[in-house]
Parts: sequence; C-alpha cells; structure tokens
Amino acid sequence: MEANVVVEGRSANSRLALVKDSIVKIRSKVAEFPGKMKKVAEDDPRRIVHSFKVGLAITLVSLFYYFDHLYVGFGSSAMWAVLTVIVVIEFSVGATLGKGLNRGLATFLAGTLGFGAHHLANLPGQELQPILLGIFVFILAATVSFIRFFPRMKVRYDYGLLIFMLTFCLISVSGYRDEEVLEMAHKRVSTILIGGFTAIFVCIFICPVWAGEDLHNLVANNLEKVASFLEGFGDEYFRKSSEPESNKASLQVNFARWEPPHGRFRFRHPWKQYLKIGSLTRQCAYRIEALNGCLNSDVQASPETCGNFREAFIKASSETGKAVKGLASAMRTMTLPSADCPQTTKSKNAADNLKSLLRTGLCQGIDIVEILEVATVASLLLDVLACTEKISESIHELASLAHFKRLEPDEKDGKPDLDKQKQVRQSSNSIASNHHHHIIIIE
Amino acid sequence: MEANVVVEGRSANSRLALVKDSIVKIRSKVAEFPGKMKKVAEDDPRRIVHSFKVGLAITLVSLFYYFDHLYVGFGSSAMWAVLTVIVVIEFSVGATLGKGLNRGLATFLAGTLGFGAHHLANLPGQELQPILLGIFVFILAATVSFIRFFPRMKVRYDYGLLIFMLTFCLISVSGYRDEEVLEMAHKRVSTILIGGFTAIFVCIFICPVWAGEDLHNLVANNLEKVASFLEGFGDEYFRKSSEPESNKASLQVNFARWEPPHGRFRFRHPWKQYLKIGSLTRQCAYRIEALNGCLNSDVQASPETCGNFREAFIKASSETGKAVKGLASAMRTMTLPSADCPQTTKSKNAADNLKSLLRTGLCQGIDIVEILEVATVASLLLDVLACTEKISESIHELASLAHFKRLEPDEKDGKPDLDKQKQVRQSSNSIASNHHHHIIIIE
Repeated sequence: MEANVVVEGRSANSRLALVKDSIVKIRSKVAEFPGKMKKVAEDDPRRIVHSFKVGLAITLVSLFYYFDHLYVGFGSSAMWAVLTVIVVIEFSVGATLGKGLNRGLATFLAGTLGFGAHHLANLPGQELQPILLGIFVFILAATVSFIRFFPRMKVRYDYGLLIFMLTFCLISVSGYRDEEVLEMAHKRVSTILIGGFTAIFVCIFICPVWAGEDLHNLVANNLEKVASFLEGFGDEYFRKSSEPESNKASLQVNFARWEPPHGRFRFRHPWKQYLKIGSLTRQCAYRIEALNGCLNSDVQASPETCGNFREAFIKASSETGKAVKGLASAMRTMTLPSADCPQTTKSKNAADNLKSLLRTGLCQGIDIVEILEVATVASLLLDVLACTEKISESIHELASLAHFKRLEPDEKDGKPDLDKQKQVRQSSNSIASNHHHHIIIIE
Repeated sequence: MEANVVVEGRSANSRLALVKDSIVKIRSKVAEFPGKMKKVAEDDPRRIVHSFKVGLAITLVSLFYYFDHLYVGFGSSAMWAVLTVIVVIEFSVGATLGKGLNRGLATFLAGTLGFGAHHLANLPGQELQPILLGIFVFILAATVSFIRFFPRMKVRYDYGLLIFMLTFCLISVSGYRDEEVLEMAHKRVSTILIGGFTAIFVCIFICPVWAGEDLHNLVANNLEKVASFLEGFGDEYFRKSSEPESNKASLQVNFARWEPPHGRFRFRHPWKQYLKIGSLTRQCAYRIEALNGCLNSDVQASPETCGNFREAFIKASSETGKAVKGLASAMRTMTLPSADCPQTTKSKNAADNLKSLLRTGLCQGIDIVEILEVATVASLLLDVLACTEKISESIHELASLAHFKRLEPDEKDGKPDLDKQKQVRQSSNSIASNHHHHIIIIE
C-alpha cells in the first residue's frame, strides 16, 4: 500500500511538473505572438490590406444573407453566397479568378448534368430510382477522382473537379420533383454568381495583388542574387534561396495565367518562359553552392601565389556579375537587353582570359595542392559562367516573346529613368555589407 | 468593295484553317487520353483503388441524403454529409484525418462562438443587430485571414481556419431565433460527423494509403539513387530527382503527423528527422550534379594518364556507394545500421587514400590541363563523400529516435530476411543498365 502511495505521489508530482512545463511553453508562445505577427506583416504589408479586403467582402455578403432571410428571397440558398466568397477569395487576382471561374463553370455543368441524371433516374419508376442514382453517383465520383490525378488537371482544375462532383451529387440525389430541382438549381447558381462577383470585385478593384507581377519580380530578384554573388557578396545569397521558392514560382505561373491583361503585361504574356528562366537560375545556384563549398573548404591557396590567376578569377566573376545584373534590371523594367552591350562583351573576354590562363599553365613551380585547389575553383566558376550565358539566352527569348520595349537612345548612354534606378538601388541595398567576401576566401 | 470581299474571303479561309487546326489538336488530345490514363494508373496503381473508394463513400452518403429527404430527418442539413465526404476524403490516411479533424473541430468551435455572437447581437434590439453582426463578422474574418498567413498555421490548420470563418458567418448571421439556431447547429454538426466518419472509415479500412510509409520509402529511394550514382550508374539519377519531390516530402510529413500508429510506425515517430535526411540528400544531389557537369565537360584527361588516381577515384566512389546503399536498406527495413560496419570503414579508407593521393602530388610531369581536370573531379567527389557522412550521421540519429530494431546475428552475417532482399533487389532492378558509365566518362 505504502509503495503505491509513494508512486502515486511521485506521479502526481511529475504530472504537476508536466502541467507547469506546458504552462511555461504556452506562455512563451503567447509572448512570441505579437513579434511573429509583426514579422508576418512586415514581410509583405499587402497581407494586412488583404485581411481587410476579406473582412469587407464577407461582411457584404453576410449582410445580404441576413436581409435575404428577413425578407425571404433566395431562402436557405443565400448561404451559398457566403460560402462562395469565403472559399473563392485569395491573395492574388489570378488565384481568385481561377477559383471563381472553376467554381462557376463546374457548378453550371454539374447542375445541368445532375438535373439530367435526376430526370433519367425518375423514368423507370420509384423502386429503381435510388439504385440508378447510386450507380450514376458512383461512376461519376470514381471517374472524377481518377481524373484529379492527372498532373495537368490537378494543377489547373482541381478545385473545379471537386465542385463538379459536389454539385452533381447534391442536385442528382436531391429527391425533389423536377420543377423543384430546377428552382433550387436556379437559386444556387444565382447566389454563387453573387458571391463570386463580390469576391472578384473586391479582389480586383481594391489594391489588387497581381500574381504575374509578383512572379516577374521574383524571377528578377533571384537573378540579382546570382549577380550579387558573382560581384562579390556571397553570404546573402544562400540564406534566401530556399527550395519552396521554386515551387512558389510554378504556382504563380498557374495563377498568372488566369489574370486578364494588366499594367505592363499583355494578353498571352509568355509566363511559361519565366519557369524556364527560373529553373536555369536555380541550376546556376546549385553550381554556385558547389563553388561556395570549395571556397569555404579547409585547404586554401596562400595569398602570394597565383596572383595572375586571382586577378583573372575576380575579373571574370565581377564582370559576369555586372552583365547578369544588367539582364536582371532589363527584365525588371521590361526593356530589350541589347545583344552587344559592353558588359556582356567584357564578361566574355574575362571568362576567355581565365580559360586561357588555366590552359597555358598558371603558377608554374608552386605546390601541387594549391594548383588543385585553384583549378577546382576556376573550373567551377567557368561552369557558373556557362550557366549565366544560358540564362542570358532565355531572357533574350523572353524579351522577343513578350515584346519588351527598346531602350531610348539617351537611356542607353547610362541614364535610365528614375524609376528603374530606384528599383535597382532598392534591391542592391540589402546586400551592401561585405564586398570583399570573395577576396578574403580565395586569398 | 472588291478588296473588302477578298479580305473577307481570305479571313474566312484563315478562320476555316484555324478551326481545322483546333479540331486536329482536340482529336490528337482525345487520342492521347487513354495512353495518359494508363500512365497515371501505372505510376501508382493505388490511384484506381482510391477512385473506387471515393465512389463508394460518396454513394453511401448520397443515398443517406436521398432517403433522409424522403423520410424527413435532418432536412436540408443532410447535404452537409455529402459535402463533407467529398471535401474531406483524400489519397492518404493522414491527409483525410487532418482535414476531417480540422473540419470537425473548426465547425464545433465556430458554431459555439457564432451562437454567442448571434445571442450578443440580439440583446440591444432589432435596429442595432445587423450593425453589430457586421462588425463581428468583419473583425473575425479579417483576423482569421491574417492568421492564415502564418507559415505554421498555413501548413497545418489552413483548412480548419477556412471552415472556422465559414461556420461562424453562417451561424452568427443566420437571422433565425436562438432556438432555431441551436437546432440548426445541432443538425449541421451531426451531419458533418456522419460525413466525416464515413470518409475516415472508408479511407482507413479499405486498402489504406499511409503518408508516413510513402515518405519513409521516398527518402530511402532517394538515398538509393545517390548510392547508385556513386556505385557507377549516373544516368538514371538525374532524370528522376526533380524539384517537386522535396516539396512532396514536406507535405507528406504534415500528413504523416496526423496519422495514428500503424504498421512499423509508432506513436510520435520522428517524422521531422526525415526532412533533415531529405534535405541532406538533396544537398548531396546538388554536388553530384556539379560533379556530373565536370565529368561531362569537354576537356577529359586521357586514359593512359593518372592511372593511380583513376583507381582511387573509382574505389572511393563505389565503396561509398555501397555504404550509402547499406544505410538506405537499413532505413527501409528499419534496422539499426551498425556503426562499425565494414562498408563504412572501407569507404572512409578509400576517401582517405584519394585525399592523400591528391596531397602527395599525383601524376607528376603530365599536362597541367589534365591535372586540373582530375583535381576538380576529385575535390568535388570528396565534397560528395563529406556530404554522405552527414547523411549517415542523421540516419543514425533517426535510428535511435525511432528505436530501430537491432539486426539478428545471423542476418548480420549477410543473410538478411527474404523480404528485405526482395525490396533491395526491386529497387536496384531499375538501374541495372550501364554499369561502366563512370569509367567511360573519366577515361
């Protein structure tokens, strides 16, 4: 008995400790909350605006639902308006339009088909009806679920397929008489249209967030990060280029495709080309990561050796960095990057110089370990440079596909418009810290 | 006039051509359809099973909805059962449970809160009610939309937050009297429970697909691909390791967390550790890509030089490949990888050998270009090997966290159980084609 009491006492104690522990945890989480909230808001201030937009849209349709109930118009169907707004409204215009169109079209098609199925199942008589309906529903649900596995369907029409299945089941199995079903379908479509239009209206006309523009800036930003690394600031790069971004880009492309022409982006803007540029930039980033690994490895060539080589290395890297930065800013401002710009030529020359230095045998007579180290770095850098050339090609391709405008002659002489300068300066502000990073690590 | 007719004629012609063109396109798409369907099914046959499961679950609740309407029980609330099944049922058990729990909990909480808000808004009188309700809905909708931007909330509770917002609006703004609201809430919760349980039941008890198991196999597969590359089959690797997989893994982890203990996976299995192993494997893959780039570049060391080095290179690569393969199969079978296994020792020795060859200066007196080429490849390989060591560490960590079982002594002597052998053989079957790939490219 005593032993039991001791055990119970102990376990009560440990339980108390556990409770205390979780209280401390919860308290620290609550204390962290305002900081986290601030961070989420600071990362992208448009999020706050979006929250207010959602609040506004939902309040509008909620009041519609409220008054409809008092003065009886759509009846309980009015709740579909609330449901639609909440489900359809998204951060970017493209995502909202995509969901709204998916929902509208799927409801209409499935409503028609469901009504047909309902009517057909009615024909043979009361006893057979549930069996026939069960068979219809089973076949349709299984087929649609299977179609949802098609990668292309999944990406663009997943939500539509879900709503198609939903509406078909609700309408065909409803068990009402044909006239009642027609009326119900009519009410449901009307309320969904009201909800959908409210969501789309608020999304487009109050501080719209265009997925296409975000994608455009994302790709340009990533290019600039590569350029910054090549120009000599390595650190910043790796903290920011994380996996999810690549996924984000392909999502954004899908949203951007739903968007109407807006601002600088015309109808049928070549969004797919952005994916190509993005994937090339990513490949470049992998190579840069390997290069960075080498630069930070244990064995380092001593500073006094390989002077020639070091200069050639830094020159090739920084010239290419400038060229890539030029491409990035051309992309950002949607101006045609000139094929024969001095930066590109300089960068090519510097790379050729590095190559020939490697071939003719630099640093004769010094330690083999150092040669090896230097050679590794150099060939990786050449790899990176080859990759940037591919990026340049694909940006030229984009420029011709999207009809980028030609630079005015006076801008070409080094006087780009203020807006452009500002943007470029903004993006390089964040990476102004350690200029001689490279020089330190290859010394 | 004539010119006009000609233009019209021409445009009619070109319109006809356009129509013909799109008919051809549609026809080819339709012709491709069965092939695509077969591919989707062959990629993962469980998809067909899943489609039938969805059909079954939806048919069950649809008939419930149908009969409920005939014999009047839940009234129009019965449709929530259909809605819930369609929205909740997902491919893996984890995803279904996650959605179901999110939906159930959110409906309950929001229902309570919505009832409270409804009651509160009723107190001051009829005129103020819509204003108060509007303010409540606005505040709640804006807050919840903002919370959905928190990365952690987005990942685990996004659906729950959506449903929370939805239910709160529907209940609080409903405009019924308090008793009616209570009855409505009661019916809705009951039907959602019916739908949710149907979905979860069908998902768990008919050929369940466990996200955790899929994740486990995915990580082991990726490791095996790295091992295969190192052992000498490079080609296969790069076609399969694409970006989306990394994203898939982090999704799977979130699903796996919702799953109850099943099969070999206990309660609180360290799923997060899989992300760590996955990210290390990915880093290793980047380095392998850089290595592959070098191996396939233009300049190649001639076959007769660097004999010593070539042997050391192949040895280090293949020994490490074997060690990684051992780790992968230990992971797959969930057995403790022995810390002092002969493969690991051999791989370490081979790597040390390669390092010392590099340091003592191999291939004296041959062309500098070749030395450079060889040195680059070697240091990249050493980088890859360092990465595999980190992977090995994290797998040992996983083994201790997840209490992997110890191998039986007789299995240790090279007689693993049949099941394990079969699995290992299956996975290496697909990569049995070009064994001497490496040897060709570094010759």
